[in-house]
Amino acid sequence: MSDTTDRDARHLARMQRKKAVIDERIAHSPDECGVLLVLSGNGKGKSSSAFGMLARALGHGMHCAVVQFIKGRNSTGEERFFRRFPDEVTYHVMGEGFTWETQDRQRDIAAAQAAWAKAREILNDPGVQLVVLDELNIALKHCYLDLDQVLGDLQARPPMQHVIVTGRGAKPEMIELADTATEMGLVKHAFAAGIRAQKGVEL
Amino acid sequence: MSDTTDRDARHLARMQRKKAVIDERIAHSPDECGVLLVLSGNGKGKSSSAFGMLARALGHGMHCAVVQFIKGRNSTGEERFFRRFPDEVTYHVMGEGFTWETQDRQRDIAAAQAAWAKAREILNDPGVQLVVLDELNIALKHCYLDLDQVLGDLQARPPMQHVIVTGRGAKPEMIELADTATEMGLVKHAFAAGIRAQKGVEL
Repeated sequence: MSDTTDRDARHLARMQRKKAVIDERIAHSPDECGVLLVLSGNGKGKSSSAFGMLARALGHGMHCAVVQFIKGRNSTGEERFFRRFPDEVTYHVMGEGFTWETQDRQRDIAAAQAAWAKAREILNDPGVQLVVLDELNIALKHCYLDLDQVLGDLQARPPMQHVIVTGRGAKPEMIELADTATEMGLVKHAFAAGIRAQKGVEL
Repeated sequence: MSDTTDRDARHLARMQRKKAVIDERIAHSPDECGVLLVLSGNGKGKSSSAFGMLARALGHGMHCAVVQFIKGRNSTGEERFFRRFPDEVTYHVMGEGFTWETQDRQRDIAAAQAAWAKAREILNDPGVQLVVLDELNIALKHCYLDLDQVLGDLQARPPMQHVIVTGRGAKPEMIELADTATEMGLVKHAFAAGIRAQKGVEL
């Protein structure tokens, strides 16, 4: 190899290392960090809001994950939609494989714990940039999960990872941990006016 | 053609007509109709919520449209994401083709009016099942549009068409027209804590 080629190769290598260092600094500038958003309250739109943010994150090319802490729901529109992008979104619904024919609190707890085990994997994975923990507040309200463990796992996540937690009745400790908390208040609801849940909007 | 084939063909035609009639009745049962949802308030998540519902509707195979009544924003994550599906979502952003270098109210009004002209086409199209009018409340608050005309156009839409209107400061008349109105109240915001807007979550 000639001297010129050698020199060019070393120059290229230096420039690549320099760019990598600068990129790393930009990516981890001190005042940018993953935020914890909590969406609570009785109004409509908590889960929808999380899924809208998921869409936005995907538009920015982020890798995302969803864990839904819900029972007995069939495939919903948002699940059906976001499962189209398996390379971009990991999707996990609580209770997959469980049946809900019997009212069985122990089974519910087991299902929630299994879903949290999945969530904890995700909260340990710096490759996942946005995590939606849908209806987690409900699981905590029913004491299916240990609050201190959940809060600890949330705090221990990768510094750049965003998390969105949704559901009515957020614990005060969850609100306290949140960077942003929104309380969605119901002003007026179609159900009260006798209009049934509308597919595509509410299901 | 033999008698048997003739009879089978007529039978098939009758069954197909019968199914079409039943499908039509199911699709238009009296208590199912398009709803108007208004998402207002100072908390985070209004637009996100609308986009989450958009995702859900797409999961149900619905044809959708978005008109964004905003100024001077570059392509956002949600716009970038939903523009991937041009056969399923029509996407229109106010001010496309306009520049915002001068503070020019007349120009703003013209841009908003042009966006509403686009919205009105959509509100006249029964082929569109879900419409998001993002930040419409802001345009109305600034009196860029005539409120009575907007409300009239909303009321005159196809009976099965859902509409979601977002933005702070919804007019009382808009809330009155809504089937569901959610007020998103801010409990705690990262901005107050000195954390900058995070790409993927807030941009």
